[in-house]
Amino acid sequence: MSAPAPRQLRADAARNAERIVHAGRRAFAELGADVSLAEIARRAGLGVATLYRHFPSKDDLILAIFEWHYADQVEPAINEALADGDPWQGMVTVLEAALRLAAEEKSTFVAARDPARVTSDLASRFFSALSTIVRRAQQAGLVRAALEPGDLPRLVTMLVSTLRQSDESAQVWRRYLALLLDAFRPAAATPLPPASQS
Amino acid sequence: MSAPAPRQLRADAARNAERIVHAGRRAFAELGADVSLAEIARRAGLGVATLYRHFPSKDDLILAIFEWHYADQVEPAINEALADGDPWQGMVTVLEAALRLAAEEKSTFVAARDPARVTSDLASRFFSALSTIVRRAQQAGLVRAALEPGDLPRLVTMLVSTLRQSDESAQVWRRYLALLLDAFRPAAATPLPPASQS
Repeated sequence: MSAPAPRQLRADAARNAERIVHAGRRAFAELGADVSLAEIARRAGLGVATLYRHFPSKDDLILAIFEWHYADQVEPAINEALADGDPWQGMVTVLEAALRLAAEEKSTFVAARDPARVTSDLASRFFSALSTIVRRAQQAGLVRAALEPGDLPRLVTMLVSTLRQSDESAQVWRRYLALLLDAFRPAAATPLPPASQS
Repeated sequence: MSAPAPRQLRADAARNAERIVHAGRRAFAELGADVSLAEIARRAGLGVATLYRHFPSKDDLILAIFEWHYADQVEPAINEALADGDPWQGMVTVLEAALRLAAEEKSTFVAARDPARVTSDLASRFFSALSTIVRRAQQAGLVRAALEPGDLPRLVTMLVSTLRQSDESAQVWRRYLALLLDAFRPAAATPLPPASQS
């Protein structure tokens, strides 16, 4: 029997990585943060050595789960928003995609040894795109001019904080996103204290 | 020398407890969550046995700090709000007092072994009073009718989440309180998703 061609090997590796990512998401959601990498390998139908080859640590797997979800759900919403003729609706769609990710990956996030480090690169990509999307809505007069790029991480953190007391299926965050969006509108805007104070 | 009268003993005890509470607040703020009870006793100018007689555990002391601050700053704001002819301003004053407490006692809160248990009784007293104050503002047509008592803990949690990335002297929370208050006004209100979903 001849050895498989390199292209075939790469395709196998990519398929294995994806199986591990999906098994990992489900395992964290069902079994919680303490689930072992061996259990995730078992659920993926692969050996634990194969898992370690792809993801040397739990945080490497968790980063891959976030990247997969971001590429699958958030990036398409961003691209849609940047092309959307209605900058308000584009902004709402992107915020919804981000909150859905945070809600669905709550257990994954908690499982990380260093959650902030795992998500920091994705977060800066996200907030850079969101700034552009919010600026478009401001230029169209749909969002109050006083909102600054530096507000966006804080506002998303506020919305994420509503996930803490609710289970993953509850969509409580939708209510607080709707409320916060009402404060984005120029209609109700009153002067805001400055973004940074000494 | 005759023994001191019971009233004198009680007065001494109350004064000692207050010295410990103030020394504890400053110690947590200056030295962080890991400060020892012995160091707090030293700063209060009292023996560690006296401290343990008043506060058998760190969480007992932390609860006393929160209760002292609440009685000193938040309760007066609540009483003022309930008597205030302007229900909007009363509500704002109470929210400001609560956020100031959360900001100033951030280190104290982090020092607790079980922060949620330490603050749960104060939190239910606070949200019960805040519900009444918000209802008054709703009855005066100043706050959108769709806000429910169950929203209030979540909204305060959202504001508290803005403290995490800022130091205690920064008053960043004032900006997000102002923003959220714009969403409280009937002017910008759009329909909200329901408060609880199955």
